[in-house]
Amino acid sequence: MLTKILIANRGEIAVRIVRACAEMNIRSVAIYTEPDRHALHVKRADEAHSVGEDPLAGYLDPRRLVNLAVETGCDAIHPGYGFLSENSELARICDERGITFIGPSAYVIAKMGDKTQARDSMIKAGVPVTPGSDGNLADLDEALSVASEIGYPVMLKATSGGGGRGIRRCDSAEELRSQYPRVISEATKAFGSAEVFLEKCIVDPRHIEVQVLADREGNAIHLYERDCSIQRRNQKLIEIAPSPQLTPEQRQYVGELAVRAAKAVGYENAGTVEFLVTGNEVYFMEMNTRVQVEHTITEQITGVDIVREQIRIAAGLPLTYRQEDISYRGYALQFRINAEDPKNNFLPSFGRITRYYAPGGPGVRTDTAIYTGYTIPPFYDSMCLKLVVWALNWEDALDRGARALADMRVQGVKTTASYYQAILQNPDFRSGEFNTGFVPSHPELLNYSDKRDPSEVALAIAAAIAAYAGL
Amino acid sequence: MLTKILIANRGEIAVRIVRACAEMNIRSVAIYTEPDRHALHVKRADEAHSVGEDPLAGYLDPRRLVNLAVETGCDAIHPGYGFLSENSELARICDERGITFIGPSAYVIAKMGDKTQARDSMIKAGVPVTPGSDGNLADLDEALSVASEIGYPVMLKATSGGGGRGIRRCDSAEELRSQYPRVISEATKAFGSAEVFLEKCIVDPRHIEVQVLADREGNAIHLYERDCSIQRRNQKLIEIAPSPQLTPEQRQYVGELAVRAAKAVGYENAGTVEFLVTGNEVYFMEMNTRVQVEHTITEQITGVDIVREQIRIAAGLPLTYRQEDISYRGYALQFRINAEDPKNNFLPSFGRITRYYAPGGPGVRTDTAIYTGYTIPPFYDSMCLKLVVWALNWEDALDRGARALADMRVQGVKTTASYYQAILQNPDFRSGEFNTGFVPSHPELLNYSDKRDPSEVALAIAAAIAAYAGL
Repeated sequence: MLTKILIANRGEIAVRIVRACAEMNIRSVAIYTEPDRHALHVKRADEAHSVGEDPLAGYLDPRRLVNLAVETGCDAIHPGYGFLSENSELARICDERGITFIGPSAYVIAKMGDKTQARDSMIKAGVPVTPGSDGNLADLDEALSVASEIGYPVMLKATSGGGGRGIRRCDSAEELRSQYPRVISEATKAFGSAEVFLEKCIVDPRHIEVQVLADREGNAIHLYERDCSIQRRNQKLIEIAPSPQLTPEQRQYVGELAVRAAKAVGYENAGTVEFLVTGNEVYFMEMNTRVQVEHTITEQITGVDIVREQIRIAAGLPLTYRQEDISYRGYALQFRINAEDPKNNFLPSFGRITRYYAPGGPGVRTDTAIYTGYTIPPFYDSMCLKLVVWALNWEDALDRGARALADMRVQGVKTTASYYQAILQNPDFRSGEFNTGFVPSHPELLNYSDKRDPSEVALAIAAAIAAYAGL
Repeated sequence: MLTKILIANRGEIAVRIVRACAEMNIRSVAIYTEPDRHALHVKRADEAHSVGEDPLAGYLDPRRLVNLAVETGCDAIHPGYGFLSENSELARICDERGITFIGPSAYVIAKMGDKTQARDSMIKAGVPVTPGSDGNLADLDEALSVASEIGYPVMLKATSGGGGRGIRRCDSAEELRSQYPRVISEATKAFGSAEVFLEKCIVDPRHIEVQVLADREGNAIHLYERDCSIQRRNQKLIEIAPSPQLTPEQRQYVGELAVRAAKAVGYENAGTVEFLVTGNEVYFMEMNTRVQVEHTITEQITGVDIVREQIRIAAGLPLTYRQEDISYRGYALQFRINAEDPKNNFLPSFGRITRYYAPGGPGVRTDTAIYTGYTIPPFYDSMCLKLVVWALNWEDALDRGARALADMRVQGVKTTASYYQAILQNPDFRSGEFNTGFVPSHPELLNYSDKRDPSEVALAIAAAIAAYAGL
């Protein structure tokens, strides 16, 4: 078993990994740049080391991190999500230096990170993909020709893109002509690659993704699916497991597809196979070769500790579970509490948390790196807390979500919590039948009331009156 | 369905009930005496009303509380645990005034509260009881005669006792002679009744209790058992569900006995049937006619929301589940975090909570009424937080418990958290084979280290050095 892990990340996922290490009796090493000196992952890890003054550079330098792992006597690096988690260079340098990279091989990361290579692999494995270009586009002419063949709308995508960036929808040849140079320029800047490809645009699909685990011995299982259709501009807001809108046959089908996909590429460790689902059609979208923000809800319904499994697999152990050991129970929802102002175009709202109160009671889980007195630095992602709720059935899970959101206090910054309360009351959402068009088609949900809880206001007034009356 | 519930309690159980009401769209009414003016249950309920200056009187006055329920338009009262929860008078007055009492009938409360009547009912229902006196003892002579028949040691018990009080073990006739007048005097003072009875003392039994739910239509189910053998002076410290030391046959047997017990007395609502288990022998101990502190761990393994079911049953609805719908998964442990100093004979440690940080991540639940800045008043129970952990298997649950206890911060008062850490590392405990003799037979576990987490100390020192060096 591994004995000491360097966590090449920050924020809640770093805390999550520290917790897994603590439960496995593995020492954890945190890293931090200057703005993160007082971050929770630094306080909770067994050791913490500075990786420089710059807010970001230290988190993004694979060689420096592997050196640090070697120097501090670590035998492994966990990359978390974001940052270097899908950087094959980190995995490669780890290999060179005899450090275990907790994730798939550099080869698989690179292959699945290249969207056209990933498509090719899936086509060969018999996993359905959306109609599109045969690999990368040579030029605009080829793009126009493919588009007229598969029909508009089409999606123009950066081959190295991800996280919802480097993607543009084109509804006509005219739009494709104007977007083509823009996506190339964006991709070059953001991902260092000018390669783009084209796919048919599935209008308002459901975003369904399947969690897989695969070990070194070639065993691969799935942990059922997550429905991540509640998105704003390709950023997930609320995730649900299992999907309230898959039939048992569809559930089995996507699970099997995901395992087939993982096996086809010789996948090892935890990964997620993302699909677009429309009607009865299921199309492979991409594979994320890392733990995901929303792994939590899969943990809630299956009971499997995914980060623990990641560490075990990386240590060379076989999977703890066979497919027939995996069952799911109830419904889990994750609310990404972002430090943003939904009423102001979701503008980030960084600053000092004057009060954080974690909701408690049955069926509630929180993953966060904030605490009372913590100042959210402006250099990173605005997601400051993951609130997960679980209940045996869908309606109860929704009601529990509303209760937990009301129970929670994140004061000092604006958050998306009240917006999620509005979503939870929406009949389309409650019906369980929604797709990625839900958020754009319900702008009225932004008109939620910003007022404090009326009972708190009433109590404050009553207290003031009592004090005035000398009671 | 009920529309507005008065919560005749305080502390974490009042918060728990507020949460259930919020999820069911039922208005909640909190009550408070002067020391509880700033208590969390007051802040979280939809309404809150003072019941006087005296710390306790207002919580213990059935007529006053029913009047308040009527005045505030409530249709029901939830008594929680402790206080008036097993006071048949409250149930009776509720009946008179047309308020729904969320619990069994006054008749059943009185019958099960009288330990000799409860014993009689169980004997008639074919539920095994420990050998003992036939009802209450007439005098010391009868006590001595019964004791010599069943053999020492024996337990002398107050018929109206409960919660571990009014019970004395006697190892010889001499001891019985000296304890007899003491228990009568104690019982008269504490419970207003001089009646006592006698049972064979089962030495170091396991304390196994079964959660039952029964509705008005006569349906009764069990939600499996809890192992509450980790006790100090009859006060539970750590509770576990399911018991790690029952065979499947024993589990089925105690479940069936509990349902039989509930049906035999016409039980309605949630209740707990407590058994003493030694080897293969199972003896009925008592039935608690209310929700219990440790209902949480049953919720974790079955997914059933017990407080919600209590409210539904009281509203006249049939049980949501049949026995075959109930399954359990994994292991849950509850740690009762008491504001006490274990190293100083568990002396209560009341005062201001200078910092409370709720542990998070997978498989962790907290139920508490404390918050940063809250002052624990000295008038009530010292239990200030229930920390519940869950994992798919026993070893993982233990490791998760250790992690969550370390993750948590309750500062400003002494707590039992570090003592529980010591218990979690004990091989006898980890083996899953322990009985009520565990705590008294392991006094060495009180020699735990009181030091702060070493990484925090190291970080504090590093920060001080860096500041000194002007880094």
